[in-house]
Amino acid sequence: MKVYILTLFPEVFGPILQSSILKRAAEAGLLKVKTVNIRDFAVDDHGTVDDYPYGGGPGMVLKPEPIYDALRWVEQDAGTRPYAALMTPQGRKFTTGVARELAERDLVALVAGHYEGFDERVRSFVDDEISIGDFVLTGGEIAAMAVLDATARFLPGVLGDESSAESDSFSDGLLEGPQYTRPPVFMGMEVPLVLRQGDRAAIVRWRRKESLRRTLRRRKDLLREAVLTYEDRRLLAEVLREEGIDGKDLW
Amino acid sequence: MKVYILTLFPEVFGPILQSSILKRAAEAGLLKVKTVNIRDFAVDDHGTVDDYPYGGGPGMVLKPEPIYDALRWVEQDAGTRPYAALMTPQGRKFTTGVARELAERDLVALVAGHYEGFDERVRSFVDDEISIGDFVLTGGEIAAMAVLDATARFLPGVLGDESSAESDSFSDGLLEGPQYTRPPVFMGMEVPLVLRQGDRAAIVRWRRKESLRRTLRRRKDLLREAVLTYEDRRLLAEVLREEGIDGKDLW
Repeated sequence: MKVYILTLFPEVFGPILQSSILKRAAEAGLLKVKTVNIRDFAVDDHGTVDDYPYGGGPGMVLKPEPIYDALRWVEQDAGTRPYAALMTPQGRKFTTGVARELAERDLVALVAGHYEGFDERVRSFVDDEISIGDFVLTGGEIAAMAVLDATARFLPGVLGDESSAESDSFSDGLLEGPQYTRPPVFMGMEVPLVLRQGDRAAIVRWRRKESLRRTLRRRKDLLREAVLTYEDRRLLAEVLREEGIDGKDLW
Repeated sequence: MKVYILTLFPEVFGPILQSSILKRAAEAGLLKVKTVNIRDFAVDDHGTVDDYPYGGGPGMVLKPEPIYDALRWVEQDAGTRPYAALMTPQGRKFTTGVARELAERDLVALVAGHYEGFDERVRSFVDDEISIGDFVLTGGEIAAMAVLDATARFLPGVLGDESSAESDSFSDGLLEGPQYTRPPVFMGMEVPLVLRQGDRAAIVRWRRKESLRRTLRRRKDLLREAVLTYEDRRLLAEVLREEGIDGKDLW
């Protein structure tokens, strides 16, 4: 997968691309990231990329021409038209599902200028608009990093163990259950006995049950949408009983 | 406001702290960010901070001791107990409201180790758990950056114009409307006439109406929750008529 990031701050991506998963993905030849400085496509020799808003008001608005030209440059550089996604709080919500979808593409351009302050006409040059949540960032850079990292996890071979991303929260519609490592007791808090004993089937069952319990406690909305097996429903019934919740209140 | 970031990759924060809003906030003395390397609190001389999960499975699990010790160090360094927030996809959803809430605090510690793979007991050392969305990141670093940037925007004096953050999307429960800058025509797309004429009241009215229209088209859920004035309701009625939507379908 090849990703171009259009940004006003290419230097911000330096260290994150050199860290953990993104570095590993690049080294394995599975992900190639190229930053494109929007300022290289400024409308004049002073590097102008934004201007005052029509109608007045605070802040500067990113002009349409530099984005248009930068996207055309990406198309030439890559030899084919990229799937261009604009980072904006008004876009569709980024989720694990969107990450999985982007990971299927060969060529993506993430447009990360100002997160809100850009000319409306920029929207007409892109194929997608992506928001990482109901909050406003100064630039789209942090949003692009989130999209890049979460998407890279779904590129086959990127995670050490192929099963890792699929056992993450949201992958099967549930939150992940608790995890423990040594020491067995810390500050009086003990690792559940079942995890310390060797019964494989009991561990699998415990983990699934605690994943259901956590999702019930924290994200009923996810639980309602999740596809549950017959065994899941049996485990959930146990959880509901233990938590003293009437199943009718859930559905 | 003082923010400590507990992380395994302090170098990732270097350039973002030197860019735009976070730099400006620091220079103005409004925000002080300090990164704390969790590895400095490793349990041995080899820098060990994680270990295999009890019960088996892929990935490494961040140990509880280094986080506990790092938070105690922050308390000593700051002279008072920080409000500690763990970055995790299982936390409460980060929104503009949460950003505003954090911006009221004097001392916050953002815990950004592995985003999912940490010992369950870490949750007991923190006051809050924050998720930036329904997707999984490798580390909590990108989430911490998002929280930091969105929060800094609400520190009084950080944005050039005080009114800026309050006119952002979500601040009043609506999406922001379209913005335009020069040129007046680009690729056949024209800036709306009302913005190019000098009628202040007409511009304010147009912006509010387009903000309502955008929220209606893209985020009915927000519109249903928004507190609307009498004038807003009149504008929304116009929008509904123009869009051919029956108001009854909305509420």
